[in-house]
Amino acid sequence: MSGGDVDRGAGDDLMDKVVNLCKRRGFVYQSAEIYGGFRSAYDYGPLGVLLLRNVKDAWWRTMVQLRTDVVGLDASILSPPEVWEASGHLTNFTDPLVDCRNCGMRFRADQLEDPDVCPSCGARGQFTEAREFNLMFRTQAGPVAGAGADVYLRPETAQGMFINFANVLNTVRNKPPFGIAQIGKSFRNEITPGNFIFRTREFEQMEMEFFVPPDEATKWFEYWCGARMDWYTELGIPADKLRLRPHDADELSHYSAGTADVEYLFPWGWGELEGIANRTDYDLTQHAQHSGVDLEYYDQQADERYRPHVIEPAAGATRTMMAFLLAAFDTEEVRGETRTVLRLHPRLAPYKAAVLPLSKKPELQSVCEEVLGLLQPRWMTDYDVTQSIGRRYRRQDEIGTPYCVTVDFDSLEDRAVTVRDRDTMDQDRVPIEGLAEHLDAKLGL
Amino acid sequence: MSGGDVDRGAGDDLMDKVVNLCKRRGFVYQSAEIYGGFRSAYDYGPLGVLLLRNVKDAWWRTMVQLRTDVVGLDASILSPPEVWEASGHLTNFTDPLVDCRNCGMRFRADQLEDPDVCPSCGARGQFTEAREFNLMFRTQAGPVAGAGADVYLRPETAQGMFINFANVLNTVRNKPPFGIAQIGKSFRNEITPGNFIFRTREFEQMEMEFFVPPDEATKWFEYWCGARMDWYTELGIPADKLRLRPHDADELSHYSAGTADVEYLFPWGWGELEGIANRTDYDLTQHAQHSGVDLEYYDQQADERYRPHVIEPAAGATRTMMAFLLAAFDTEEVRGETRTVLRLHPRLAPYKAAVLPLSKKPELQSVCEEVLGLLQPRWMTDYDVTQSIGRRYRRQDEIGTPYCVTVDFDSLEDRAVTVRDRDTMDQDRVPIEGLAEHLDAKLGL
Repeated sequence: MSGGDVDRGAGDDLMDKVVNLCKRRGFVYQSAEIYGGFRSAYDYGPLGVLLLRNVKDAWWRTMVQLRTDVVGLDASILSPPEVWEASGHLTNFTDPLVDCRNCGMRFRADQLEDPDVCPSCGARGQFTEAREFNLMFRTQAGPVAGAGADVYLRPETAQGMFINFANVLNTVRNKPPFGIAQIGKSFRNEITPGNFIFRTREFEQMEMEFFVPPDEATKWFEYWCGARMDWYTELGIPADKLRLRPHDADELSHYSAGTADVEYLFPWGWGELEGIANRTDYDLTQHAQHSGVDLEYYDQQADERYRPHVIEPAAGATRTMMAFLLAAFDTEEVRGETRTVLRLHPRLAPYKAAVLPLSKKPELQSVCEEVLGLLQPRWMTDYDVTQSIGRRYRRQDEIGTPYCVTVDFDSLEDRAVTVRDRDTMDQDRVPIEGLAEHLDAKLGL
Repeated sequence: MSGGDVDRGAGDDLMDKVVNLCKRRGFVYQSAEIYGGFRSAYDYGPLGVLLLRNVKDAWWRTMVQLRTDVVGLDASILSPPEVWEASGHLTNFTDPLVDCRNCGMRFRADQLEDPDVCPSCGARGQFTEAREFNLMFRTQAGPVAGAGADVYLRPETAQGMFINFANVLNTVRNKPPFGIAQIGKSFRNEITPGNFIFRTREFEQMEMEFFVPPDEATKWFEYWCGARMDWYTELGIPADKLRLRPHDADELSHYSAGTADVEYLFPWGWGELEGIANRTDYDLTQHAQHSGVDLEYYDQQADERYRPHVIEPAAGATRTMMAFLLAAFDTEEVRGETRTVLRLHPRLAPYKAAVLPLSKKPELQSVCEEVLGLLQPRWMTDYDVTQSIGRRYRRQDEIGTPYCVTVDFDSLEDRAVTVRDRDTMDQDRVPIEGLAEHLDAKLGL
């Protein structure tokens, strides 16, 4: 895996280190690795699944839990052609592909550096005409393959919110401006996946559709651009590695009245974490026309009927996780040794604490069990008994655990433990009785 | 949707009521409903997504967070044929289908009441020979359709754990007995989906593979049967609606040394929520043979090398959610009116609390904002300002909110609010200052 899908270039050193850490410590594995690996597909290991959950939970907390104007949704991945007909994906969600007649290799026409020379065999003028290749995965539902049984794996979660707009409006008491948020997997048959978990065929999205009165669209677009930038910086992305890049007029989708990308400075350059788009009433209009269902909102107070405009902050969960990993990765010299430390925000750290007995003696283990019993109901807590305490601190530093709790022989006497801070390496003696509250205050979640 | 996929029979009344509640209050919608509905696919609405998250989080908490011997995983849904070749799914994961030559309808041969008579048109002796139909969804990855590009949507999450066994073993410090747990979507092209969200083609699983020394398999099988039954009862499934049913010898999979189903008494009869299987070393052996990778564990202390046996508690998240809904649904007479109350365990309730201002007056709203600011960081909290306070209590009862917090004009004077209990309907006056702690203690999470 290391480097296999990763573009070479500036910043490789950091990239290699993080990819290596991911593999070595169980954040990310190549999918089906024992079968030689399934290209550009990844499995999230014991630490990766925790980090990814924390990224998604942090998004959900900010976008749904802390607000009264956004509700959640979890729509089906499999969806019938009607949805993608209306959304335009069946006709427009394509990449132009060419084949080299000489060597048989296939390329994206819009990504060829020289549109005449095959980058694989060097043949000139051997490309076929470009043909449009749809990026949606298609499969068949029901026992008989054939027309009518085609279904698609959704290439985005967004359409699930649009087609449920009327359902949600009828079952909650929110009215525009209000949003529908969804976290879930999407699938795109990318021709050129790559850069580790940055672009994969199966990926996870965190999307929110915010429905607003048409004359408030610009205001809310600006609001969400600001709110979303804040989310990344509050969770630890440094300001100089993050930018909001408005799309140029020629970049804009035909339905968009404005789009800005939240970009992170990856080792290979700026890359999109999230797109914030003013989608106008395009989506609701398309689905209203194709379904024949009225997708308007009737404002009783104003006696006004209108089709809301939509502001969509749409983020990639897996690539956002990668940005957090890259931003958090740090090394420093400590007493002549190099310490690797993942300076993850406590909310994102896979484990909030690790409980470490100074030795494997049974009397310490029973204190550890008591401590685990206090911490586990609150947070994911690691428990590590092997090797020297110094090595265990380093192992926890490397996976970003904010606090190590060491149980030593004094603990049997003073009923206290040593709490070590990941970032400062400072150590405090804390009574077991107040330990959970002590960590709670320190973590500040 | 109401009744569309739901079998008729005893208990219909309860089933209709719950399906109706799901639709009306935004737990579950028919997928692609504005396009006439996508059969047997469902979208989880604002309340359903919260309930489903809570079911999954409760499982994760018990199975991963509160233990030191289980770690998590999140593997790819798309997976290459090699995995399903080794697991046996490519050859064995089939249903026998027959066509009626008279009317053209297709049926599962093993589910026909009379193997000779078409249940659709009544024709006798018109069935074709049964042919085996594979239940896996197949699609193509990469730009060219054809051999070699086939990939499958996983029909179970379990194989992701088996093929990552060596990866996990190398990156965590656990050793057998230890488990790998995963929550995620799986897909089966069922011929006869039905019973609302009980059997759908896209569904969510909560599976754990527990790897043990071979001579401990029986002990751990019994342990997990007990532990899993406890999980359901502790979250509110009544003991008389839950049973552990050991498979008969002729029901057992060829690789299983013992399987027991956790079953719930659904309105149409007993139905499986979870299967607990002693899978022996079948899976690791299959993958070791097919991949050529050694999937054994070397126990340094005992200087012993062995292939662990696997105990697998595999639950369906969506059908478990349905069981919790059915078990929680209750109606009672209160002062001459029928009150519908969803007696969900507080851990499962979509909202833990609802904040209700007695009127829409701005001075009450600002107190409500203060109260929301105290509760939202801890729990999903609803906010409802419309209609009479009595109607709002009923609305919260119906969706299972354990506590309603009413802000009235006295609140401006005494800085206190009324906390109403969903189950007892008792009301307490509680100071705003200590409200979060008061609810925290009451909820007991």
